[in-house]
Amino acid sequence: MGKEITSRKEDYSQWYLDLVKKADLAENSDVRGCMVIKPYGYSIWEKMQQGLDKMFKDTGHVNAYFPLFVPKSMFEAEEKNAEGFAKECAIVTHYRLKNDPAAKGKLMVDPDAKLEEELVVRPTSEAIIWSTYKKWIQSYRDLPILVNQWANVVRWEMRTRLFLRTAEFLWQEGHTAHATATEAIQETRQMLDVYADFAENFMALPVIKGVKSPGERFPGAVDTYCIEAMMQDGKALQAGTSHFLGQNFARAFQVQFANKEGKLDYVWGTSWGVSTRLMGALIMAHSDDDGLILPPKLAPIHVVIVPIFKSEEELIKISEQANLIHAQLRQAGLSVKFDNRDTHKPGFKFAEYEMRGVPIRLAIGPRDLENGTVELARRDTKEKKVVAQNEVAALVPTLLAEIQQNMYNRALAFREQMTTRVDTFADFNKILDEKGGFLLAHWDGTAETEAAIKEETKATIRCIPLDAPEEAGVCVYSGKPSARRVLFARAY
Amino acid sequence: MGKEITSRKEDYSQWYLDLVKKADLAENSDVRGCMVIKPYGYSIWEKMQQGLDKMFKDTGHVNAYFPLFVPKSMFEAEEKNAEGFAKECAIVTHYRLKNDPAAKGKLMVDPDAKLEEELVVRPTSEAIIWSTYKKWIQSYRDLPILVNQWANVVRWEMRTRLFLRTAEFLWQEGHTAHATATEAIQETRQMLDVYADFAENFMALPVIKGVKSPGERFPGAVDTYCIEAMMQDGKALQAGTSHFLGQNFARAFQVQFANKEGKLDYVWGTSWGVSTRLMGALIMAHSDDDGLILPPKLAPIHVVIVPIFKSEEELIKISEQANLIHAQLRQAGLSVKFDNRDTHKPGFKFAEYEMRGVPIRLAIGPRDLENGTVELARRDTKEKKVVAQNEVAALVPTLLAEIQQNMYNRALAFREQMTTRVDTFADFNKILDEKGGFLLAHWDGTAETEAAIKEETKATIRCIPLDAPEEAGVCVYSGKPSARRVLFARAY
Repeated sequence: MGKEITSRKEDYSQWYLDLVKKADLAENSDVRGCMVIKPYGYSIWEKMQQGLDKMFKDTGHVNAYFPLFVPKSMFEAEEKNAEGFAKECAIVTHYRLKNDPAAKGKLMVDPDAKLEEELVVRPTSEAIIWSTYKKWIQSYRDLPILVNQWANVVRWEMRTRLFLRTAEFLWQEGHTAHATATEAIQETRQMLDVYADFAENFMALPVIKGVKSPGERFPGAVDTYCIEAMMQDGKALQAGTSHFLGQNFARAFQVQFANKEGKLDYVWGTSWGVSTRLMGALIMAHSDDDGLILPPKLAPIHVVIVPIFKSEEELIKISEQANLIHAQLRQAGLSVKFDNRDTHKPGFKFAEYEMRGVPIRLAIGPRDLENGTVELARRDTKEKKVVAQNEVAALVPTLLAEIQQNMYNRALAFREQMTTRVDTFADFNKILDEKGGFLLAHWDGTAETEAAIKEETKATIRCIPLDAPEEAGVCVYSGKPSARRVLFARAY
Repeated sequence: MGKEITSRKEDYSQWYLDLVKKADLAENSDVRGCMVIKPYGYSIWEKMQQGLDKMFKDTGHVNAYFPLFVPKSMFEAEEKNAEGFAKECAIVTHYRLKNDPAAKGKLMVDPDAKLEEELVVRPTSEAIIWSTYKKWIQSYRDLPILVNQWANVVRWEMRTRLFLRTAEFLWQEGHTAHATATEAIQETRQMLDVYADFAENFMALPVIKGVKSPGERFPGAVDTYCIEAMMQDGKALQAGTSHFLGQNFARAFQVQFANKEGKLDYVWGTSWGVSTRLMGALIMAHSDDDGLILPPKLAPIHVVIVPIFKSEEELIKISEQANLIHAQLRQAGLSVKFDNRDTHKPGFKFAEYEMRGVPIRLAIGPRDLENGTVELARRDTKEKKVVAQNEVAALVPTLLAEIQQNMYNRALAFREQMTTRVDTFADFNKILDEKGGFLLAHWDGTAETEAAIKEETKATIRCIPLDAPEEAGVCVYSGKPSARRVLFARAY
């Protein structure tokens, strides 16, 4: 395959798009803003789903499914939520096509099949779910409700980019209902921890947990928590959000419960979600100019075995050894591919599996057969070494764990190197333009300052980190007092 | 809970709806024709998905994801397909809401945000997928493509019934592309076999494999194969379909490939799908007036343990024994629930788990502790027996296998008893009205006769069974010659 993608240095944005295409992850469809997730990309998403789904179930959640459509009047009920999404909603207005009398073989929308009430294609499901919870909840005995949904949602984005921002995307959305504010806040924080755990331990992606400024809150939420990750170009990517909804949706949909004392009260809610955007984060955090680098825990193929052969006879001998290793590794629960195609040269295959991010490559040639060895190459470091065939089965699982850890360490070291404390607006601008990355700076807590900084620098407050220490200072922009630093960055 | 549902004898249709509600499987939403799949119902669907997904992957298929929306011009391309679905399509015409100047707090469709081309919410994905395959396929080396998608689809049905017929439903749709007709037909038949295997071995549901009459074909297919199951009221339910598409979609979307000789040819296609309709089939084939009866292979909970206690002290002692059994059964890979709630009586719990179809119930009371026994009840036969506690772990897995087999045998015996060979139209009508079930009758092969029989009897040709022997006869309706019997029934 050779160097088929733009280098990161040359054009980071184009590198990303080239990689998504060449690694066979996704492509644009003929439907504006909607992507096709290709089989290899989807198999990584499936691994993410499995990991997350188990974590949700381990924390007591169950899956359910709610309608794709939300009637307009229901969508309107929580005003802030409605206002927040109104400008990017796909709207169903008719339910039938008919033959176009003016054009043979063509169809037209049947004007007689106009809906009495328009349907919004869900951009998020709070409205439809809380209108349902109203039927499910009468008493404290019906609480908590801990439900998650795996679904597609649509937000009509004008500028789209594969995985990062698409009109339709896949996600999970948890929607929980509780008897007390305390319990709902605990749930919100618990799910933030689940997301951080998933990002760090599956995606090898260090994240900063924090709370959004009021201006960046989810529409309809009382508080929005988030995890923020750093990409290799120093930009931030919001990788997951968990919202404390207070009683906002319960009030909008009149969801009340009788507490233990028999008194009626509104239910407390949370919602939390991650999406196929995580695919974008995974790619941009780890990969290089040769293609994708996958953390072993999300790799559809852990090990690829490539035979180096000139004759059919050599291939047969190598295959014996390869099949043995294949069986041993599968026995250890690993996913292994033996690529014995005779239509492609080893060099082509090497490049192909590098592009696809397979963590470990084993190559076996005639000399290896003589010596009882294989050549082992790591995708993350590109290191190669010759190892004894009879040691492969013991070595590989350890090495995969090491790769997983190394990828995390590398991303963490990069983030630390690219995080700067700044105390003046001049430094703020200088660092942002010359170095990029995360800036820890004092902010006076006002929406005006936040907006002004965004306007002047394109950097936004990513979050107020949960672990930010109390530290008296003055706002980099206004000079007004501030109690702690917040995290600024340019972001995806 | 008591007898909370209508009996089958009284009103089979109402029994079904009562059961779906009381077993907490699904409910109607406030969105016309769309259902909410509740957590317990969804957990059964998840088991179905897992079983099917593994079978698809074992036969070489991979998952992918294609857009929810299909532009109208793309939808039109395969004319028969478009014509077949045009009358039941939800259409997106706008992409934005705005504040309604006439009503504060209300939204209206923004007339300035009208789409240049309307989008059809997919009723099935052949169009969008074949328009994508055009980009993926150049040469025979790119074939076969063996892709499956798990997705939601929308067909605007006027009369809906939970799981059986809903405007939005969940399904999987396989879409494969091949270099030869033979290979595509083999794929079509293979997937029919996969569906039959799943129905019989997971759902304990015997099915008849057959091919649809031309009038019942999937719009755009050359041949539609199906599996047909019998419900307890004697009506048929189509449980899955597999279509040989010939080159129809390849022609419509200009998908050509260079064969080994370098000659261009159109690609051969198949598509195949099963949906949440299978939930309806599962319920209606097996359940009784006390609720759901689940085959163990699809039961979210295999065994429930109910303690019979008067005092806290008794509960503690019983819990020790229950926890031991719980651990042993979990060790054997089973899903077990110990219901130690002190807010509900044992009788209530018994009825609840019967309603939910849990295959095995274990009850432990003070006398059982003395005797070292438990009371074991089977959901399928309602048989109860007292067994030694130390035999439970060995007994349960065997018993679950027996229940699975018994449910299949019972459904098969019922179907055989309810299948009648008829040779005159008088008998046809009589049997249909008095006994119901499947009728094996001669048909002259014409669409006219098929339509006339449907008009007069409401029975349709479910399929021409694949194993139907050659047998010369005369059509029950027209008296014209026929070479084999076909399967008639009234159907869901």
